Amino acid sequence: MSLSAISQFVREHKYFLITSHARPDGDALGSELGLALALESIGKRVDVVNHDSHPSTYSLLPGVEKIIIADRVPRLDYDGAFVLECGDVGRPELAGLERLRVVNIDHHVTNQNFGLLNWNDVSAAAVGEMIYRLLHETGIALDRRIATNLYVALFSDTGSFQYGATTAESLEVAAALVRAGADPTFAAQIIYNSNPYEKIRLLGMVLGTMQRDPSGRIAWIRLTQEILRQSGANKADTEGLVNYPLSIKDVLVVAFIRESGNGKFRISLRSKGYIDVSAVAQRFGGGGHVNAAGLELCGSYQDVLETVLKQLRPLVG
Amino acid sequence: MSLSAISQFVREHKYFLITSHARPDGDALGSELGLALALESIGKRVDVVNHDSHPSTYSLLPGVEKIIIADRVPRLDYDGAFVLECGDVGRPELAGLERLRVVNIDHHVTNQNFGLLNWNDVSAAAVGEMIYRLLHETGIALDRRIATNLYVALFSDTGSFQYGATTAESLEVAAALVRAGADPTFAAQIIYNSNPYEKIRLLGMVLGTMQRDPSGRIAWIRLTQEILRQSGANKADTEGLVNYPLSIKDVLVVAFIRESGNGKFRISLRSKGYIDVSAVAQRFGGGGHVNAAGLELCGSYQDVLETVLKQLRPLVG
Repeated sequence: MSLSAISQFVREHKYFLITSHARPDGDALGSELGLALALESIGKRVDVVNHDSHPSTYSLLPGVEKIIIADRVPRLDYDGAFVLECGDVGRPELAGLERLRVVNIDHHVTNQNFGLLNWNDVSAAAVGEMIYRLLHETGIALDRRIATNLYVALFSDTGSFQYGATTAESLEVAAALVRAGADPTFAAQIIYNSNPYEKIRLLGMVLGTMQRDPSGRIAWIRLTQEILRQSGANKADTEGLVNYPLSIKDVLVVAFIRESGNGKFRISLRSKGYIDVSAVAQRFGGGGHVNAAGLELCGSYQDVLETVLKQLRPLVG
Repeated sequence: MSLSAISQFVREHKYFLITSHARPDGDALGSELGLALALESIGKRVDVVNHDSHPSTYSLLPGVEKIIIADRVPRLDYDGAFVLECGDVGRPELAGLERLRVVNIDHHVTNQNFGLLNWNDVSAAAVGEMIYRLLHETGIALDRRIATNLYVALFSDTGSFQYGATTAESLEVAAALVRAGADPTFAAQIIYNSNPYEKIRLLGMVLGTMQRDPSGRIAWIRLTQEILRQSGANKADTEGLVNYPLSIKDVLVVAFIRESGNGKFRISLRSKGYIDVSAVAQRFGGGGHVNAAGLELCGSYQDVLETVLKQLRPLVG
C-alpha cells in the first residue's frame, strides 16, 4: 500500500523538498507546512519551495516564513520531493522537479501517477486529511502548529465542511486536529475575515446589477470595466461573486457577464443540481463542468445577454 | 447527573410536549425535530409546539410537518415538556407551559434552571449536540432523519463549525451524525442557498452605502427606509448584513445605521477580538456583548454618524 511505502520512505531518508501547485490555495499551503513542521519535528531537513507566493490570507499560518519562492528546484541532491495536490508533475512549475525522486500525494481523479511513489485518494476531502494519516502512520506526534496547518487545509478545501467531499472521516480528522491544538475560530478568521475593502465594495456594485427572468429561475450579474475601476478591486476579487445570486432559493442558473473590452465578454455560468451548463458553454467554444462553465462572446451587452438567456431558458423550463 | 435523570424520565413516561423559543432558529428546530423523531422511534407520543412558524429555510427538515403553531399548550396532561434552548420558561411564549413538568435542556450561561429537571451545558456548541448525547444515553438508535435534524442544529448554531463554541466534541458528534446518514451538503444547501431574491438585492444596495474612516479600521453601512422599500426586502433580511464589512481584513469595528423613521436610528455595532462595543452602546442606553451591541439615537443621519464615530475612534486608536 502506498501510504505505508511513503511512511517507510520518510523514515529512511533525511532531506526533502516539499512543493505544491502554482498559485497555491489553502489545502496546498496547509498541507505543505503541516508536513514540513512534522518532518522537522523528527529531525528531518526540509525545503518548502513554491512557484508563487501565498495569498495574504495565509500569512498567519505557522511556518509560512519557510516558503522559498523559485521557478526551479534549488538543488538536485534531495532524498525525495513531496509533490502535494498536483495532477501532474508540471503543476508546481518548478524546473528540474522531474529529476528528483517524487512522492505524489493527491486526491484528484485526474492524477497522472507521475511519482516514484504515488498515493492518490479521491475519497479524501483534502490532501491535509491525507497528511494527517501519513503522520499517524509514521508515528509523528501532532503539535499545535502542525495541527493548525492541516486544519486550515481541510477547512478551506471543504469550504468549511460544506462541499460534497466532506465525509464522516473528514470530520473525525478535524476533531483530532482540534484536540491537538488547532483552533476552528482561527481558521475561519483567516479564511473568511481577510477580504480587501475593495472586494466588498465590488460585491455591492456587482449585486446592484443583478436581474432575473420572469420565472425567477435565471439570474444574472454584470461587471463593467467602469465598475471594476470605480471599486478599486482587481480581477482576483471577482472570484466567488457568482455564488451570491446562486444562493437565492429559487434561482437554478446564474450567468456572470464580464466586459473584457473591445466588445468582448467573458461569461461564467453556474447551476444547481443536475442542470448542465457545460453543454451551453461548449456550443460557443467554451467548456467546464456540469455546474460551472465559461464561454466568451462578442457583441453589445444586450445582444450577448439575449444570446445567453436564449440558451439557458430551456434548461430551467 | 441531570443527563441520566432526563434519560430515566424519558424511559418512564409516554407522552411529551417539545418546544423551544419563539422565532425558532436552526438549533431550536433541529433539536426539537431530532428529539421528536427519536422519541417516536421508541414508541413515545410527542407534540412539537412552537409559538412561531419556522423560517422557510428549514422547510425541508425531516418531520417539520409535525410542528403545531400555538400560543398556549394544547393540553395539560402531558407526562412532561421538553423546553429546548431557552434561558427561561417565558421564551417559548406558550401560555400554561409553567404548569407542566418541564425538562430544561440548554447551553446558555444565563439559563435560569427553571425546570423540574435541568441540564445546562455551556460547553456544548448547540443543543443539538446535547440531544445527541441524550439519545446515546437513552440507547435510542439514530436514523437518517434524526441525524439530519441534529446535524442541521449543530451546523447552524456553530455557523458551519466556525464560531468559538466549536470544540473537538462538536466535530466528533458531527462525524457520528454523518455516519448515521446526515448529509453535510444538504445542511449547507438549506442554510446557505435559501436566500430570498430581495435579500441579495438588499445586500447589494446596503453595501453600496459602505464607507470607512481614514484609518481603515472603522467601516459603516446605512439602511434607509427608501432602500428597504426599493429592495422589496423585509426586516428579517437585514440580519447578517453587518458581517460583510466586518469580513474586511483591516476593519476592527463596524456600525450598521438603520433609519427607523421620525428621526430615529437603530445602530448595531460589531467588533473583532477584544474591542468592546457594549460600553459604547451602554453610554447611550443600549446594551449587548463585547463584540455585538446596539443602541438608538435621534437626529439627522450626519449627526448620528458623527456621534457614533466619535465614540468608536478611541477603540481602534
